[in-house]
Amino acid sequence: MSIKSSKIMAMNAGSSSLKWQLYDMPEEVVIAKGIVERIGLPNSIFTVKYGNKEKFEKIANISTHELAVQMLLDELIGLHILSSYDEIKGVGHRVVAGGEYFKESVVVCDDVLSKIEELAALAPLHNPANAQGIRAFKKILPNITSVAVFDTAFHATMPEENYRYPLPNEYYEKYQARKYGAHGTSHYYVTQKASKILNRSLHDLKFITCHIGNGASVTAVRNGQSVDTSMGFTPLAGVMMGTRTGDIDPSLIPYLMEKTGIYSTQEMNNIFNKKSGLLGISGISSDMRDIIAARKEGKKEAILAFDMFANRVKKYIGQYFAVLNGADAIIFTAGIGENSAVVRSKILEEMDWFGIEIDESKNLPGVEGVISADSSKVKILVIPTDEELVIARDVERLRQALRTC
Amino acid sequence: MSIKSSKIMAMNAGSSSLKWQLYDMPEEVVIAKGIVERIGLPNSIFTVKYGNKEKFEKIANISTHELAVQMLLDELIGLHILSSYDEIKGVGHRVVAGGEYFKESVVVCDDVLSKIEELAALAPLHNPANAQGIRAFKKILPNITSVAVFDTAFHATMPEENYRYPLPNEYYEKYQARKYGAHGTSHYYVTQKASKILNRSLHDLKFITCHIGNGASVTAVRNGQSVDTSMGFTPLAGVMMGTRTGDIDPSLIPYLMEKTGIYSTQEMNNIFNKKSGLLGISGISSDMRDIIAARKEGKKEAILAFDMFANRVKKYIGQYFAVLNGADAIIFTAGIGENSAVVRSKILEEMDWFGIEIDESKNLPGVEGVISADSSKVKILVIPTDEELVIARDVERLRQALRTC
Repeated sequence: MSIKSSKIMAMNAGSSSLKWQLYDMPEEVVIAKGIVERIGLPNSIFTVKYGNKEKFEKIANISTHELAVQMLLDELIGLHILSSYDEIKGVGHRVVAGGEYFKESVVVCDDVLSKIEELAALAPLHNPANAQGIRAFKKILPNITSVAVFDTAFHATMPEENYRYPLPNEYYEKYQARKYGAHGTSHYYVTQKASKILNRSLHDLKFITCHIGNGASVTAVRNGQSVDTSMGFTPLAGVMMGTRTGDIDPSLIPYLMEKTGIYSTQEMNNIFNKKSGLLGISGISSDMRDIIAARKEGKKEAILAFDMFANRVKKYIGQYFAVLNGADAIIFTAGIGENSAVVRSKILEEMDWFGIEIDESKNLPGVEGVISADSSKVKILVIPTDEELVIARDVERLRQALRTC
Repeated sequence: MSIKSSKIMAMNAGSSSLKWQLYDMPEEVVIAKGIVERIGLPNSIFTVKYGNKEKFEKIANISTHELAVQMLLDELIGLHILSSYDEIKGVGHRVVAGGEYFKESVVVCDDVLSKIEELAALAPLHNPANAQGIRAFKKILPNITSVAVFDTAFHATMPEENYRYPLPNEYYEKYQARKYGAHGTSHYYVTQKASKILNRSLHDLKFITCHIGNGASVTAVRNGQSVDTSMGFTPLAGVMMGTRTGDIDPSLIPYLMEKTGIYSTQEMNNIFNKKSGLLGISGISSDMRDIIAARKEGKKEAILAFDMFANRVKKYIGQYFAVLNGADAIIFTAGIGENSAVVRSKILEEMDWFGIEIDESKNLPGVEGVISADSSKVKILVIPTDEELVIARDVERLRQALRTC
């Protein structure tokens, strides 16, 4: 290990979870990683993976993000991964919505933190939790460099015709109602990686990146920059997801409120965010693995959920072929995109007119890299995303920059 | 004129207007046509065109649709276009939303009329007006065949994966919340016509039809059947329009309601329907001709409105290339689609990857037929729509069918 190397923590806080990864930088070596689940619920689950495939697991009642961070740091010492808190030189936090304030990663001061909280309307499921994670770390390790890395930052390059909605102008000018997108760190990472795999400059490449996990978004990338993306003002828009609707006719809101007797638009929006998507259609699960299993058993609703899901991603791919005037490669990443060969096949089936040809002998579970046939005009790639690495790199970069002040 | 020929009226009622066309059928000859505008407002305008480019115009206060129909029939006699009311053997009415009740044209009985009114939630700007037109005719000419022709009927062939929304199942099962589409009569007419122009069977052709007027929708057509369309549960969804948003992130509703202090989702929906689109962005007009003029003068908001409009149509075209796995032709119709060469050019610019190549020497105002270059892999057609003729044909067909009962 180089004498200059430093330990950097990459954090991804959800409303009841805390995912983390500890790096030695600039070597980009993962020393340990883990997740705290069920924060605020009975029997929280605390997991650490480290060293030579070693695993530590503990069940405890962890009531707040702050207690989760405290336990995490204590266990890192207990497991001899750290000798003291001071070894951690910086921490980077994933933040979903940066609004129009943040077009790149920033060092977190009080003003940044309050802006992140202010932007909760743009990512109601995510920003408040992200802010909790930041506060927890700030309290326990107040003196280390703390960086916020925004999911929206990569999409700051979208042209106005793509990020504006056809609403009265004042809704944009006064209230910043526009498309922000999300998953930017992931879309950014996989295009960088794809450029290396294809051994071609980013400036010569047009990509359609499909980040498909429980949340899902599709992005059109040209010259290494986001040109358009499927998520919108919030991560509700775009393709169908595990529990989210994606695009729907907004007229459904007053209609369904009247029919169901739901009188709050927030509650309706909550149903669109948490009870729709794969879960709403299948009635079984929001998890694609469960849908695929039920589909194999011939369950009608699961077949429909599966078909609709692939259909919505396919349509965005078509859309972005038009936006980019063609594409050199389609990239699949995130939980479903990386692991589900059958979903990838379904999305790209009957697209030979586009010169898209999957090589099914390569399209296997666990595959990484190119899965298109050699004759395919458009390359198809599977690339495991690594948002944590991008976060750690940004922390290291800003830490070095601060040092020169 | 054949001895068996009969006069058929095709009606298209709006909230404050009544467009009509009088045919001799089965010859399909237009005897007269016209429009009553500003019904219910001071200085209503009553216009008839007939014979050898003759035109009759009258300003009067016409307070109801019934009075408009009465004046229309009286003037047809006054202008010696009809000798008596009895000459009219049938009337067909355009109805925007048929919901899941009506998958084809039907003879209007009381039950049909009440169902059309019941479906107002699906087309709040249109169905109540359509019903008013039907009632007005029924009252004055109770004994003629009255037919309802639905804008949604052509889209009844959409597969479930396209017409369903990723919402909880019960919203479809209990409340019929699904995509219905609109402009079906127009999409149907232009595909029929295009098949003749290209001299190829509908069964060998895949079309993307762009009905772009003040309302606008794009449809994917295979084997002469609608496979997918951009309008949704209501005509609000899909591409940007004169005053309508088209697709937006539904999360904007609670957000904008809170920001603006608007407390009713219906009022918010009204703004999305009536104050958005070209009008909302440009701040000038909902009429594309005004936007184009202001754009020429370099007005920033008009340039943005124009670019966004073309961009949204282009994205749906891309989407439907993916849905259809390619297309033989793209068809432009309706006010903007038929008349605006510059909009057509903008929509299809930088699509050479798709093999789309406009011949600008053919893409002229007033053009009809093929406007693509001979080398274009995808044909581009401009076809003036004729929904009234489809309506008249359906009236005549059903009138003949009734006669055999």
